[in-house]
Amino acid sequence: MAARIGQHTIRLTHPPCVIAHAGLAGKKEKDGPLGAAFDKTFDDVTFGVPSWEEAEQTLLRTAMELAAKKADLPLSKLDLILAGDLQNQCTASSFAFAGSGVPFCGLYGACSTMALSLSVASLLLDCGACSTAAAATGSHFCTAERQFRKPLEYGGQRTPTAQWTVTGAGAAILAATGKKTDPRITHVHFGTITDLGITDAANMGAAMAPAAAKTIGDFLRDTGTAPQDYDLILTGDLGFVGSELLLELLRRDGLNLAGVHSDTATAGV
Amino acid sequence: MAARIGQHTIRLTHPPCVIAHAGLAGKKEKDGPLGAAFDKTFDDVTFGVPSWEEAEQTLLRTAMELAAKKADLPLSKLDLILAGDLQNQCTASSFAFAGSGVPFCGLYGACSTMALSLSVASLLLDCGACSTAAAATGSHFCTAERQFRKPLEYGGQRTPTAQWTVTGAGAAILAATGKKTDPRITHVHFGTITDLGITDAANMGAAMAPAAAKTIGDFLRDTGTAPQDYDLILTGDLGFVGSELLLELLRRDGLNLAGVHSDTATAGV
Repeated sequence: MAARIGQHTIRLTHPPCVIAHAGLAGKKEKDGPLGAAFDKTFDDVTFGVPSWEEAEQTLLRTAMELAAKKADLPLSKLDLILAGDLQNQCTASSFAFAGSGVPFCGLYGACSTMALSLSVASLLLDCGACSTAAAATGSHFCTAERQFRKPLEYGGQRTPTAQWTVTGAGAAILAATGKKTDPRITHVHFGTITDLGITDAANMGAAMAPAAAKTIGDFLRDTGTAPQDYDLILTGDLGFVGSELLLELLRRDGLNLAGVHSDTATAGV
Repeated sequence: MAARIGQHTIRLTHPPCVIAHAGLAGKKEKDGPLGAAFDKTFDDVTFGVPSWEEAEQTLLRTAMELAAKKADLPLSKLDLILAGDLQNQCTASSFAFAGSGVPFCGLYGACSTMALSLSVASLLLDCGACSTAAAATGSHFCTAERQFRKPLEYGGQRTPTAQWTVTGAGAAILAATGKKTDPRITHVHFGTITDLGITDAANMGAAMAPAAAKTIGDFLRDTGTAPQDYDLILTGDLGFVGSELLLELLRRDGLNLAGVHSDTATAGV
């Protein structure tokens, strides 16, 4: 059984373990500050398939196969795959896992899909609905540009606030029990949609910062914890502009994340 | 705690109640066999807003507000909204519920989104992660035609196998406890992606029938039940062609759904 604490946070009674995970990425990510952390990076992100959309499927499928291999678990033995992506109708994840024979739960959280899939997976493990589950997401710079901004062939100029959608995929295998050293998910907090009206597709950091601020603030209040109780408070896609706005918004709330917050888009920079 | 039975079915230990629900639809649906079952139907499906996409948001929001009203529960008191739709990036549901202040879990199951949202909501209620949750989905014929086939303005011809995506929205409020007469969700079964390679967007019944057959067959095997143990086995969007294929596929598996199966797209026809 899970228990609700505060207004919206859920504490897991039997925190599930992340027994294995895999992260794959492209060339730009290899050259970035997290480059050494990926299991594998690829200079050719076409993966020899005819479209960027299929390349994204390949990345997702390969990440999942690698995570399952690390968990020493045949993919087909998983109780559930929870995944989503940025393509219309989440086609990347449904095609990536169509041949797996594993029950599938499609999720849509855009940049939050990895957190969302880990969250729902953890709750289903906590309550005994699954004994193993996989959480996954992926994106590809070239599909995301066509999808959300302009097709690459158009050669549009990028503004200083524009971010690069990652070419990469991540998969985590969760189990009800694991090794003592496996990381465990202890709390889940579903965020509330927070939209301050930013409509510039080239400034997603500003669009997302208010939601990140609300989620982190709500979580800290619900759990009665302070930023300094954590080694790291990580956001996914805020970039330079969004990270600055996040810290500013939280300061107004009396929360100081300086020194504790890191954003994957700017980590180590 | 939930318990897994058979290969992929989950039996809920504390089956949650559907304490209220609302269904809204357009003119074509009003004239159909389920017309009298909707809470409200609308002859003008523009809802006075500038785009079909916004009209779909309005439908979804109105359905949710009506369901909450019937449950005698302020929307803001819900622990979680689980919803998805057919628009890119599930924009209809995220915009519909952006002002609600309620935590949001986005799901993508296309035609299965209502079942998917009810399923995940039920599991989260069963495990105590929520005490109330709403499951919702919506679609609009005019957004779906533009999204998946051709913009209406193009005036394309429809083939005999083409279905009409419903203009409508449904919302259900679930709670851990309810009245004795409230329907309860007792089992959840996440389907496995089943793709026999139908690529004709004007024949979705044929594309979806194999997945429906596998889900129903797997569920019956897992639970050790027969079609005749049920008053009704309902599918959502198979239409005439898909329904016939579903029965044919299940007959090959030794399962006879004749007289028990009904499809919402052809109900009563």
